Amino acid sequence: MESIIKIGKPSKVENFLERVRNKKPLFIVVLGNTETAKIPGISAAGANPALTDYTPAADVEYLFHGACKSIEGVPITPDGIPTPALITKACLELSDIPLLVAIGGVRIYPQTPYVEFGGKPGHDISKGNAVESIESALKNAKLFGENISKIADYLVIGESIAGGTTTALGVLTAMGYDASDKISSSLPMNPIDLKKKVVNSGLKSIGITAGPFRENPLNAIKHLGDPMQPVHAGIVMGAAKKIPVLLAGGTQMAAIIAIIKALGLSILENIAIGTTRWIVQDSQTDLKGIIDQIAPDLPIFAANLDFSAMKYDGLKAYERGIVKEGVGAGGITLATLFSHEKTTDMETILSKIEENYAKLRSK
Amino acid sequence: MESIIKIGKPSKVENFLERVRNKKPLFIVVLGNTETAKIPGISAAGANPALTDYTPAADVEYLFHGACKSIEGVPITPDGIPTPALITKACLELSDIPLLVAIGGVRIYPQTPYVEFGGKPGHDISKGNAVESIESALKNAKLFGENISKIADYLVIGESIAGGTTTALGVLTAMGYDASDKISSSLPMNPIDLKKKVVNSGLKSIGITAGPFRENPLNAIKHLGDPMQPVHAGIVMGAAKKIPVLLAGGTQMAAIIAIIKALGLSILENIAIGTTRWIVQDSQTDLKGIIDQIAPDLPIFAANLDFSAMKYDGLKAYERGIVKEGVGAGGITLATLFSHEKTTDMETILSKIEENYAKLRSK
Repeated sequence: MESIIKIGKPSKVENFLERVRNKKPLFIVVLGNTETAKIPGISAAGANPALTDYTPAADVEYLFHGACKSIEGVPITPDGIPTPALITKACLELSDIPLLVAIGGVRIYPQTPYVEFGGKPGHDISKGNAVESIESALKNAKLFGENISKIADYLVIGESIAGGTTTALGVLTAMGYDASDKISSSLPMNPIDLKKKVVNSGLKSIGITAGPFRENPLNAIKHLGDPMQPVHAGIVMGAAKKIPVLLAGGTQMAAIIAIIKALGLSILENIAIGTTRWIVQDSQTDLKGIIDQIAPDLPIFAANLDFSAMKYDGLKAYERGIVKEGVGAGGITLATLFSHEKTTDMETILSKIEENYAKLRSK
Repeated sequence: MESIIKIGKPSKVENFLERVRNKKPLFIVVLGNTETAKIPGISAAGANPALTDYTPAADVEYLFHGACKSIEGVPITPDGIPTPALITKACLELSDIPLLVAIGGVRIYPQTPYVEFGGKPGHDISKGNAVESIESALKNAKLFGENISKIADYLVIGESIAGGTTTALGVLTAMGYDASDKISSSLPMNPIDLKKKVVNSGLKSIGITAGPFRENPLNAIKHLGDPMQPVHAGIVMGAAKKIPVLLAGGTQMAAIIAIIKALGLSILENIAIGTTRWIVQDSQTDLKGIIDQIAPDLPIFAANLDFSAMKYDGLKAYERGIVKEGVGAGGITLATLFSHEKTTDMETILSKIEENYAKLRSK
């Protein structure tokens, strides 16, 4: 079984692979909080809606320290299924890839080193007023991306924000892309009707219908997005002028691609999406169907992660479509396979995830 | 005339040079504010004592944006002599070396991207209670240094903190090193008696005399240091386990070396100091005399910067011993010479400084 699922034009896919194979990447996770995550039933990224504010901080505390500081244990879904940061952590340990944390805009800051860009936490998009300080955060993020691209061979950049697929749907819809039956979810039963209702309420409250912001992504973010997006897009835009960038995530990355395309198409040549099998094989998600509307040639890679043979039910649950992606899990698994193919295969990664999960349970 | 002045055991000096020549460095500036800078007569890093809080932010805004945002113009001394960030900026432009800003602890944050470690601004050391949150900031800085060392070939790390030579004297004295007639100053007439008085007042207020903290540098920082120090030392300690690190500064770097030595001697093998001719040839400063007490084999490099043929009086003034060093000016000049010797010589650097100064004057 192949460890890497490749989607897209074969020449583009192989060209991207050639440029990252055996190179030294930098991994960045961009954190955000949005009040949108607290709408009951929207997000599984936290044991209950109030806890979703703590999820991004706790995720990266686990990556840096091997234990969370802002909460007890690690972030879990309401059913007790653990954060995909477990996958990310295992890969960081195996690959020795460096980690930086970037702040999009949060209420709860992580107890780790982090890079700040002046962004603010996001509001509930159903009210149509979502994100502040977009221009300055985007500008600072670009400067940071430019600087970091001078020493990293390539960049892998993921996110941790509860409610992020709903705000991705918000931005995509406001930009006139059809994503309403294609967007992913951390829940096994995608609450897509609720998401559409939230987005439509946001559109209505600013007096527009879908589509007017195709060429004005900052307005789309301002009204219907989240604070992770401008910082993520800015870092990508700064870095991709010089080095390949793997956008590590599911359908949230489609919104980033739409934003970047509207702000400067040429760098799309240097960009690919890296996600998990759970996203690309999910019957309720259609990442490729969104990307085809924005950048049809864009390579999509998916790490062929399969937890069905895992010892623990908490991990096996991923095979039922819970969680699926997040904290750059798919992208960093791919980067580990790209850059360390001689030493690290998928079997090694799966064992390490199981081993780290066992450690957490025994605490 | 040689562009690089080399001080120390020739084998150590050449060994360090070999490991950094034509490699790709990362440059970091660590910012701090201390109330100590507001004691009248202590610091020249700001047009008046109240403005010294803005100097670090303004310095790095100039580096990132080519103009300051937190103040009008650029930081100047009370006599109108411009910040050494002019030198740093010229070298960053010529060398394309990446820049990151790290926050030790500040009252005024820069309008740039920056890395945060949880440090707090510093108090007046004459009261013996100088810095909070040292342990957590040091720990976060180490984690950051470890991660960044995985992609940078070597690190150049400077500082911007008004009042920093006084707090360096505080730490060195509390650790039992004799620095009182050796410490540098940004003023042409070093206010050394005032500095000693401030440090002695700090020692007295916690009921000690010089020397008790030789093995406990965190206590020395807590009572007589500044918030730049633990973050600077932490990043160096994290990075120098793996890559060479050039500490970019004058006698403030001696305090960092003392801190690092007490916390973990072995990494000193990977460390050198990089400063300016104005420091090593100043009759009132004895950097080597301090370093000999701590780590006699440590290589010291000085960029042979000479402003006597500059067109402008504001730059010529550096030859009268004003400013001398700061914002990593000496270290980044050296790194530009180390890494780009084929394309960039001292003459090119001096022209670029003059050109950038002319641009500022015409604004």
